[in-house]
Order: sequence, then C-alpha cells, then structure tokens
Amino acid sequence: MSQCIMPDEMARPLIRGRGVGGGSGRLEASTSEPDAPVVGILGTGDFSRSLARRLAASGYQVVVGSRNPKRSAALFPEEAEVTSQVEAASQADLVFVAVFPEHHSTLVELKPTLAGKTLVDVSNGLSINRDGPSNAEQLAKLFPESSVVKGFNTISAWTLQVGPRDGNRQILLCGNNSTAKSSVMQLCRRMGFVPVDMGLLSSSLEVENLPLRLFPSWRVPVLCTLCLFAFFYVYNFLRDVLQPYIMAKKKFFYKMPIETVNATLPAVALVMLSLVYLPGLCGALLQLCWGTKYNRFPCWLDRWLTSRKQLGLCSFLCAALHAIYSLCLPLRKSAYFKLLIDSKQLKEGDVWVEAAVWRMELYLSVGIMALGLLSLLAVNSLPSVANTVNWREFSFIQSTLGYCALSMATLHTLLFGWDRAFDLARYHFFLPPTFALAVVLPLTALLGRLVLFVPCVARRLGLIRRGWEKSRHIRFDLPDEGCCNGLEDASYV
Amino acid sequence: MSQCIMPDEMARPLIRGRGVGGGSGRLEASTSEPDAPVVGILGTGDFSRSLARRLAASGYQVVVGSRNPKRSAALFPEEAEVTSQVEAASQADLVFVAVFPEHHSTLVELKPTLAGKTLVDVSNGLSINRDGPSNAEQLAKLFPESSVVKGFNTISAWTLQVGPRDGNRQILLCGNNSTAKSSVMQLCRRMGFVPVDMGLLSSSLEVENLPLRLFPSWRVPVLCTLCLFAFFYVYNFLRDVLQPYIMAKKKFFYKMPIETVNATLPAVALVMLSLVYLPGLCGALLQLCWGTKYNRFPCWLDRWLTSRKQLGLCSFLCAALHAIYSLCLPLRKSAYFKLLIDSKQLKEGDVWVEAAVWRMELYLSVGIMALGLLSLLAVNSLPSVANTVNWREFSFIQSTLGYCALSMATLHTLLFGWDRAFDLARYHFFLPPTFALAVVLPLTALLGRLVLFVPCVARRLGLIRRGWEKSRHIRFDLPDEGCCNGLEDASYV
Amino acid sequence: MSQCIMPDEMARPLIRGRGVGGGSGRLEASTSEPDAPVVGILGTGDFSRSLARRLAASGYQVVVGSRNPKRSAALFPEEAEVTSQVEAASQADLVFVAVFPEHHSTLVELKPTLAGKTLVDVSNGLSINRDGPSNAEQLAKLFPESSVVKGFNTISAWTLQVGPRDGNRQILLCGNNSTAKSSVMQLCRRMGFVPVDMGLLSSSLEVENLPLRLFPSWRVPVLCTLCLFAFFYVYNFLRDVLQPYIMAKKKFFYKMPIETVNATLPAVALVMLSLVYLPGLCGALLQLCWGTKYNRFPCWLDRWLTSRKQLGLCSFLCAALHAIYSLCLPLRKSAYFKLLIDSKQLKEGDVWVEAAVWRMELYLSVGIMALGLLSLLAVNSLPSVANTVNWREFSFIQSTLGYCALSMATLHTLLFGWDRAFDLARYHFFLPPTFALAVVLPLTALLGRLVLFVPCVARRLGLIRRGWEKSRHIRFDLPDEGCCNGLEDASYV
Repeated sequence: MSQCIMPDEMARPLIRGRGVGGGSGRLEASTSEPDAPVVGILGTGDFSRSLARRLAASGYQVVVGSRNPKRSAALFPEEAEVTSQVEAASQADLVFVAVFPEHHSTLVELKPTLAGKTLVDVSNGLSINRDGPSNAEQLAKLFPESSVVKGFNTISAWTLQVGPRDGNRQILLCGNNSTAKSSVMQLCRRMGFVPVDMGLLSSSLEVENLPLRLFPSWRVPVLCTLCLFAFFYVYNFLRDVLQPYIMAKKKFFYKMPIETVNATLPAVALVMLSLVYLPGLCGALLQLCWGTKYNRFPCWLDRWLTSRKQLGLCSFLCAALHAIYSLCLPLRKSAYFKLLIDSKQLKEGDVWVEAAVWRMELYLSVGIMALGLLSLLAVNSLPSVANTVNWREFSFIQSTLGYCALSMATLHTLLFGWDRAFDLARYHFFLPPTFALAVVLPLTALLGRLVLFVPCVARRLGLIRRGWEKSRHIRFDLPDEGCCNGLEDASYV
Repeated sequence: MSQCIMPDEMARPLIRGRGVGGGSGRLEASTSEPDAPVVGILGTGDFSRSLARRLAASGYQVVVGSRNPKRSAALFPEEAEVTSQVEAASQADLVFVAVFPEHHSTLVELKPTLAGKTLVDVSNGLSINRDGPSNAEQLAKLFPESSVVKGFNTISAWTLQVGPRDGNRQILLCGNNSTAKSSVMQLCRRMGFVPVDMGLLSSSLEVENLPLRLFPSWRVPVLCTLCLFAFFYVYNFLRDVLQPYIMAKKKFFYKMPIETVNATLPAVALVMLSLVYLPGLCGALLQLCWGTKYNRFPCWLDRWLTSRKQLGLCSFLCAALHAIYSLCLPLRKSAYFKLLIDSKQLKEGDVWVEAAVWRMELYLSVGIMALGLLSLLAVNSLPSVANTVNWREFSFIQSTLGYCALSMATLHTLLFGWDRAFDLARYHFFLPPTFALAVVLPLTALLGRLVLFVPCVARRLGLIRRGWEKSRHIRFDLPDEGCCNGLEDASYV
Repeated sequence: MSQCIMPDEMARPLIRGRGVGGGSGRLEASTSEPDAPVVGILGTGDFSRSLARRLAASGYQVVVGSRNPKRSAALFPEEAEVTSQVEAASQADLVFVAVFPEHHSTLVELKPTLAGKTLVDVSNGLSINRDGPSNAEQLAKLFPESSVVKGFNTISAWTLQVGPRDGNRQILLCGNNSTAKSSVMQLCRRMGFVPVDMGLLSSSLEVENLPLRLFPSWRVPVLCTLCLFAFFYVYNFLRDVLQPYIMAKKKFFYKMPIETVNATLPAVALVMLSLVYLPGLCGALLQLCWGTKYNRFPCWLDRWLTSRKQLGLCSFLCAALHAIYSLCLPLRKSAYFKLLIDSKQLKEGDVWVEAAVWRMELYLSVGIMALGLLSLLAVNSLPSVANTVNWREFSFIQSTLGYCALSMATLHTLLFGWDRAFDLARYHFFLPPTFALAVVLPLTALLGRLVLFVPCVARRLGLIRRGWEKSRHIRFDLPDEGCCNGLEDASYV
C-alpha cells in the first residue's frame, strides 16, 4: 500500500529519519550480493538512507561516503558500508551526490577521485528557479571530468523506501554523456522504476523545477470559479436578501449561509460547464475561417484549451455541492417553521397548485440526470480510469456525454426558470433573475455546436482536420499529410 | 497532469497541429545529442510531429522525410531535420511510417532504400477491420525486404507530446523479425514507454482494431439495464398511475418523472446485483455436476462471467440514483402540499402509527448500509485501487462484502414490502407489487450460496477446484495438477 | 478493461480452467516464432496454462512438461508443445516450476537434467509462513546445481492471460544468482511486466507471504472505528432513549436504527479525524524535546504514523454516512407524524425561533464545507491521483487542506452544540452531551498545531528537520547532512 497519500504519507520526513517504516521492511534483501555492482552515495541525509536501502534491496553493493563515518553508520541499513567520502568515491564508478546543492563546493577535494565517473545529482532547489543555471549544471561545472546525470529528484525518500509498488514511478533523467545516462537507466530499471530520457543536461532546470510546482494547471480555473461565485453571490444577495429588507423590511438574512449559496452554486456550475465547451468551438471557428489547421491558435485559446479538464472538475464540484445544499433544505428549522406557519394560515382550497407541482417534479428529475452524467465524466477524469479507455471511447464520453450533460443542465435551469423570466415582479431592483444570466453562455455553446452539425460546415471541418488547406485550391491529400490514427474526427468536440 | 482526460484532452487534435502545448514544453531537450542514434519518420502529419518531438526529447537524432521539406520544416521542432523522403529513408536504420495506409503505395519508390531496414507502422484503420489483412501486413507485402513492426497506434499524439507521465502507457508491438522488434522495444523503453511483445505480425489486425472499439464489454450490461428499467417503469406506471386514474379518476400523472422512476430504480438495481452473483453459482453447479473443472463452460455463461464487473457497476449506478431520488422526495412541492392537506384533515388521534414508523426507520437504515457496501465495491473496481489489493483481499471484498451487500439490499426490499405482499388491496389490476417481483432473483442467489456452504458440497467443490476429477475415481492430486497460487479456494465466489 | 476487479474477476478460477476468456483472446499471437528462445514449464495446472499462453503471445517457444502429455495437451494453447517432464526440462534453459510446493520432491528425478539451468518458482503457500524456509528455498535445497529464482507468485493467472494491460503489474524477483535473475527480468520485460529485484533468495519468504495478507494496514484503524462507534452508540442510547423511558416512560426506541446512529457517526468521524493529526504532533513534540530527528520513535508512534491514511479514510466514511443519514431524516414517517402533531398543537405566536433558525443554518453550511474538503482529501488518496501530485502539492492538500477540514468539522460540532453544553437540563443521567466529548481531541490537535506556528518553536523545528542537533551545540549544517529535496519543511504536518 505504498501509494498511500492521505495523511500517512506525512510520516515521510519523520520516518525518513528512522529508516524503513513498518510496511516496507518486507522489501529488504537481508544481505547484499557478493558479485553485485558497487554504487556510491555521498551524503548521509534521509534521502541517502532511503536510497541506500533501496539499492541494497535491489541487489547492489552500496558504499556511503560520510564526513564522520562512525556517527553516520548507525543510521544506515547494515547492508550498506559507511566509509569516508574519498573511500566511497574511489570504490564506485557510479556515485550519487545526495548533498545540499549549496555544499557541492565542499566536494571539490574529490575531483581527482571522481574523474571519469558518473555523478547522479538528486538535488532539488528550495524555490522555483527560472533562469538557471540548475544545480546539476553547477555540479557539472565543478566536475568537468565526470559525467553528470540529473535524476531521482522527482521521487521521494518514502517512495524509495517502500519501492515503486504502484508501477507508476517514473524517473526523469537527463545528461550529456549518453553512456553514463544509459547506465543510470539500467540501474533505475533494476530498481523497478521506469526511466525517461529527457535529453541533454540543459533540461535539468525543468526537471528540478517539476517537484516545486503547486498545481499550476489549477490556478486559473479555481480563480475563475471563485470570481464567478463572488459575483453571483453578491447578485443573489442583492435580489433575495437586501431588496426585501429595503422594500418591505423583511429580515431574510438567515438565508445567507444556505439559500443564497445554493442559488449561487448552480449558476457557477452551469457557466463553468459552458466554459469547458466554448474554447473547442472557438478553435473550430478559427480553423474554418483560416481554412487550415496548421496556424497556431492565439495564446489565450491555447491555455483555455488545456485547462478544460480543470474547468470541468470545478463545475462538477459546484454541481455536487448544489445537490447537497438542496437536499439539506428540508432539514432546516426555517423550512420546518415555515411549514407550520403555512399549515395555520392556508385555507384548504388554495393548497394544491398543479403547475408548481409539475415544474418542480420536472426540473428536479432533469437536474438529477445532469448530475449523474457529470459524475460519469468526473469518474472518467481519474487517471487510472482514463488509461483504460481508448481514443474513440474517450471522445464519446467527453464529447457526446459531455454535451448531453450540458444540455441537461441547461434544461434543468430553464425548467427552474419556468415562466419567471417574463414576470416583471421577479425583476427586483430591475435585476433579471439569476438563472437568466447563468443560461446565456450555455445556450451559446449549444447553438454553436448545432451549427457545426450543419452538413456543409461539418464536411469542410472534416477536410481541414484531415489536413486539407484552403490556400491550396485543390482538395489536397498527399500521403505526407500524415497518419491521423483514425482519431482526428472522432476526437473532435 | 498529462493524464487529464476530461475536456482538455479534446485539445489533442487542435494542439497537435501546433506542436507542443503549454505543460509539455518543459519536457523538451533543447538540442539533440551528437552521438545519438538516428531515427527516420516518413510523413509530416500531426502524429509525425509529436513523434519527432518525443524522440528528440528522448535523445535521438530525428530525420523527417517529407514531400516538400521546405513547407513542412516550419511545423517541426528545430531538433528534427526535415528532408526528402529518400534522404530520410537512407539515413536511418529504423524508420517510422506515419502515412495514411491508403497512401502506403506511394512509398514504393523507397523500396531499395528501405531494404533490410526496420519499418514501424503506426497507422490505424478508420473502422474495425474484421477479416484483414491489416495495414501492417499490407505494408509488409509492399516491402518484403524490410522487416515491418506494428506499434504505437494505440497511443495518441498527445501522449507522445507530453511523454508517458503516468507510467501507464504500454506500447503493443508485433512483428515477424524479432531482432527488429527488440530494437523497437529498446527505443520504446528509452522513451519511457513499456513495450509489450504481441508476437507475430499476424496479431497486427487485433492491435489495429484495439483503438477503434467502443466499450465492447459494456454493451450487454447497459442494454440489460435499460430493458429492465423499461419493463419495471411500465409495470409501475400501470400499477401506480394508470390504475388509480381508471378506477378512481385520480390524476397521479405528476408522479411519472420522479416517484415512478424512483420505484423503478431500486428494482433494477436489485435484479442487476443478483445477476452479478448468479453466474458464479451456475459455474459452481456445472462443475459439481461434471465433477471436474476442466470442461469448458457454455459460451453464454462465459460471457456472463466476464461481464460481472459491468453488471455490478450498472447496479451501483441505479442504487445511487435511487438514493438521490429518494432524498429529493421531501423537496417537492407535491410532498409539501400533501403535508398541508393532511395537517388540515387528520384528527390528532389517528396521527402516530407505530408500525409505519418502525417499518420506515428499519428499511431506511438497512438501505443506507447496503448503499455503503456497494460504494466500497465500486471504489474497489477502480483500476488503481484494484491494483493495490492482492488475491485474498480481492476475493474478500468481492465475494464476502459482495454477498453482504446483496443480503442487505434484499432485506431492505423485504422490509419495504413489510406485510404488503399479503394484502390483496395492493394487487392493482391483479399485478403483484413491484418489490415482490424484484426480490425473486436475489433470494435465489442467496439460497444458492447457502447451499454451497453445506459441508459436503463445499468439500467436493474444494476438491474439484484443486484439480480432482470424478472420472478418475481416486482422489487425484498429482504434482502436474499445477500450482494454484493458494488462491483457488479464496477466490471462489 | 483487464483491470476489472468487480465481480468479473471472480471468473478467474473458473476461467483459468478454460484457457483465455473473451476479452483476452485478441492478445494472442497466432503461432510462435521459429527463432524465439525456448522456455519450459513443469506442471499443467491453471497457472501453467495462462503462463504458456502469455509466453507464446510474447513470442517465446513454450515447452510444457506433463506427467501424461496426451491428456494435458488438450488444455493448452496450440502454440505450446506439451511433452514429458524430462523432455521439457532438457529443451529449455529457463524452466518455470508451476507445481504444488508439496510435490516439488517428485521432481528430483529431473535433477541431472536441470543442473546449471534457471528454475523459476512461482508457488505460494496456503497460509502465511512466518519462520520459513520458503518454498523457493526448499526448491533450491532440492536442486543445488540449478539457480532458483523466486517470482510471478504475486500475479494471478488472470493477469497473465489478459496481459499487463494497466502497466501496473510489477513482478517481484529474488535469487542468489544474478545472471539467472537478470535473464528472468529480461523475460518479464518482454512480457510487458516491470520486474523488481528484491535481492537474495532469503527475501523469498517475504515475497511468498505478500499475496496472503488480508489488509494488514486496515486492521487497527477499522477496529478503532468500531470500538469508538460502540462506545458512542451506547452513550447516546443511554442519554436519548433509555433516560426518557426511565424518567418519563417516553418510548423513543424507534430512534435506535437511525437517530441514535446518526448522533454516533459524527462523533466517531470527528475523533478519528483528530487521530489523523495527533501522531504528527507527537512526533514533532518528541523531536523538539530530543533536539534531533535521528532518534527512533517509540514503536506505537511508528505504527500510528503509518496508519494515518486508513484512519483518515475511516473518518471520511463515517462523515459521508452521517451526511446520508441526516438527509434521510425528513423522509421518515416519524418526522412526518411529528410535524402533523406540531401543526395541531403549536399556536402561531411561538412558531418562529430566530436563534434556532440561525444555529441550524450555520452548522449545516459549515458541515457541508467540511464534508467537501474531506472528499477532496479522499479523492487524493486514490493511488492514481496520488501519483499525479508532487511533494509540495501533496503536503498542501494533506497538511493545509487537512487542517482546514479538521477546523471546519470542529466548528460544525461547536455550532451544533451552541449553548447546550452549559444547559444543565441537557445532562441526562449527569452525562455531558455527546458533542462535548467528541470535541475534546480535535481541539487538542488544533491547539497543538497552533503552538507549532509560534515563531521560535517553528524555527527550532525547522532546524531539526534540516539535521541540526542540540547535542552538538553549534548550528550544525555539514554538507553530509544530506539532500532534503526541498521537501522536508513543506511536507511537515
């Protein structure tokens, strides 16, 4: 169960200090092999310890170089031999440098010993480094005669300790000397990791920045969600709480925690969902205008296109919360009190309103279906599920089911609106009802999609996707237009 | 985050046309290595571009063969050298053919140049091809002196661009020349993919059809769900809506969108769930009759057995929807109006009915537990979770917990039924109440399971599973009965 | 879809007996290659059959050794040649021993033939074997001249048949002869599996026990949950059901299935959630006292730390059930009857209680937010999602969001309590209200966390985590303190 990520992973820094924790012990080889290749490690920190353990468990002879071997020895598995740095450097051809980058300089005395050997730099920066040079490049400058390979910085000491149990531990490697690199790749494979060759050492800056990123792809979508939420919340507050207070001194402030929120969430969810499908339509439109697919899209469209998954998941989150909030409504004391009051006041005749009944039955049921479809999409965005579907299945779910969900959600909103959009009494402060605002973008998206179904448009787009270009006036389909894997059309939104 | 599959993946065809999108740029090697092996690509389509990029990023020298290199060069990463097709074919020993299958013929002029080299056919058909020959086989016929390897068709240009970040990108390869094949496998590994050897080129037809399938394993289960839904819906409509209208002119049509659906879903869910466990019992029964496990099952049972996961998930979906629908009931205006009316009409005495209270408290709580168990099963059917459990854990969850869920669900239904099955007034149109129909199959399954617990039966089955055969009258346990991995019994339903 | 684990996986034992089931057939190579290496299999059980199939599909020549080849031949794919055991043993250099461990002895006659060859032991025990020797070690004792490699026992015949489609099939290997081992690793890779070198044969005992474990990491957390549940349930029963019955002869027994459970679940959930964060604080405290991170933690803390994920998920399960139970409350006949009675009795004046309204609106909304955050954490504990986040993202979610969730949940409880903790009438039998008990641990955890935010404490802890030790009086930061991957601090709870 090394894939844990809920709190037990927090044990990492603590556990690291203590060698292997419970579950991983089983993965140790009791003693290292006599004829096994020798690997050196400089530095005796947590990472070194885990590395030594994993290497030993994978049948390597490990030699650890420490400043004062005596003190450090205790911290290492018995399989690993702890000795002086020079000793370790001289014994092994492949040496891991697990030392704070700021102390790389203290290793210069090892220069002659390390000449002609392979150094693996496992270090990370403490903050994203945009302009370089990377730690690995600095190390390479320090040891010109050794061939430096960057790697292992993307995986944690914990992963090393328990071993790559989930087959999903790739190690990104880069370096200028390809023989050195392939020997490290060999070592990765033997440890059960999947090495990925990232090319020259110049990519090391990127590789070092990877583990320091904090959800870069989520920033904009989440921000967008929050802004929409703020806007609609204020809007609803004005219409449903402030207006009655100002006009009729009615105190509806108790509505703020739940009812107003619950009027805001669906609006956000719907707009976000439409934002998922609009960029695809823009893209198609541009391609139709240009008459080719080989022009680059404007940058904003690019970014928009690549953040559609996040937009979709945010929309789903809002929709789910909306469902829970709605289901909580009858729980509330306020609802209960209202009911009692009504039961006192109402006369029997005017109780049952057929239209009101139908309206609610309909929009509830449609809403449930929309939520159901959205959950299917969400489940499908789980990496492990995503990997089991092929291109056609993927595009079916995302494109076909996705548009069904959008239509359902829009219908849900329209049914909720019923005839209220045309009832002036609903325009408090002359503000149109919320659902009327929320429904604009979705309707645009749906109409846009319908337009793309028009035969002539669809056909032209099909040509473009197969590589046809307006500029060349004949229907162009040379072989070197390349293989579309039969997916171009299917995968189109 | 390259594992996205929600909408941002739809960006693929668009992004393809534009080289690497945002997130992937970081994975590029800035320049290719001097001493790196040379790989050729014929065709300049989207796939070629992504391939070139990935190969360059993995430290290969890429030579692209195009009809008019000038125009194409712009579309390729600077690392890749774009030249004429002949030039490219002559420079590389390993050549990717990324050209529409229908244009393979246009490459014949390269025949002499490609002789003795390895051709990788990455093409897919546009529709499932049942009787062959596959694209790869046709290519092999065109280039008899080259050794053709089929592969890379199951992965998308997008995956190539961003690299196999989720370690779950297998590449299925097949070909007749194993040296050629292993060189391609080598290349896959260096790119960070996991190659899978599928044997001879004759399997290429299968490999080409894989990406064109549309949820083959889901067809029958989904169809089955829909049919059951239709049947029970009509049945409920007759009993709860039509009958009162005909008999008493009561207009209950407003029940159709929610109440009738909500009476239908649980019935479907329960029957589907029983369908998950019946085939296992049939299998056991057959094995008991035959007295051996070495006879093939009839085809229908085979298919049934292999579609149990899908049946289970459909059942879970219905159960979940049933829960949401039920929770929506008190939200509805109709419920609200009913309540008001009751509050007028009812006298205080006849309000509290102890039996009604207990019945509902009980079947609600049992229902919740059943749903809880089903969700555990569903979570366990997620690939990534499934991979973390071993055989014994798996069989515990699916068999033990599964039957608990089935029992709970059945109990839930029986408690809902209470004594109504014996109340003639409930037989509208002489149709038995729905729950009475729904409960038949589950009870059968549960009884069947109980029978298998009877010691003598259990023991005999145990023997059979270990390889014992009635035909041979002695208890037969020769070594060559093979290794059961200690799971035969545990894993039994 | 080979990653199925819901019921269709139960088909395994049945299907095994019948060779490949539906979905997997497509993956077969029609005939084996002429120049392919030869692999031998001893034993003709289910596992052997699947193994033969997969090997053939991966382009190997397979020779199966059986006691009576005639009978067995029928059961094997046509690609595999079925012959006598001696014949098979002599033809291949790499031989799989797929025979019940208890029958290994019957193979001794093959000793001369197998000398110098590689034997792969795929067997498992039937029960966990703590003191050894392992099957593999016994086999090695039987065949001293052959080099035994342990492996393939962790994967199922089913996985072999359908092939490692989900890229998540690691094969743990161990053995004393590393050339033999690497040849087996080579074979694993060619079959599309990811071999992991577990070192010497002495680890085989561990490798054999792996598939026999039954959720070892879940035992304690689940037990803990059940005990807490039992305690709180009895406690609530005493206060809410028994007390009114004894004092006022009020029959509230109908509350037992739902209301009492629903009063118990949140208490359990909250306490469990606090148990997730307490051990991290203990660890920090100990490190502060010790002034170093290099002392081992006491064993109980170790175990506690490593089972935090499970504790968290149990807590989430209770919270989710609590939500469903609460949403069911208004559905119940009892609620409905109560309402009717109230509507009769209450006079209009005393209906609307502002405080009660606000209290409920507030604790409901906070509760929903807490649940929302918990679900995010739960989704993040899915292996496939976990693998997509880097260290910083992980610690942000688990530490930051986690503490937010804990605070929300505590606030939810406090708001629910409102002023009741100070109302003596609530102390039935002089027992404090449940929420008062439940809220103790969470408050402790939150306070503890706050203390760690105090600058001086935070700074000192930071030093310790970077390797500083009190014992050495100077601020110690030698390079060989090792590389912290920039995550030490981020990842701290």
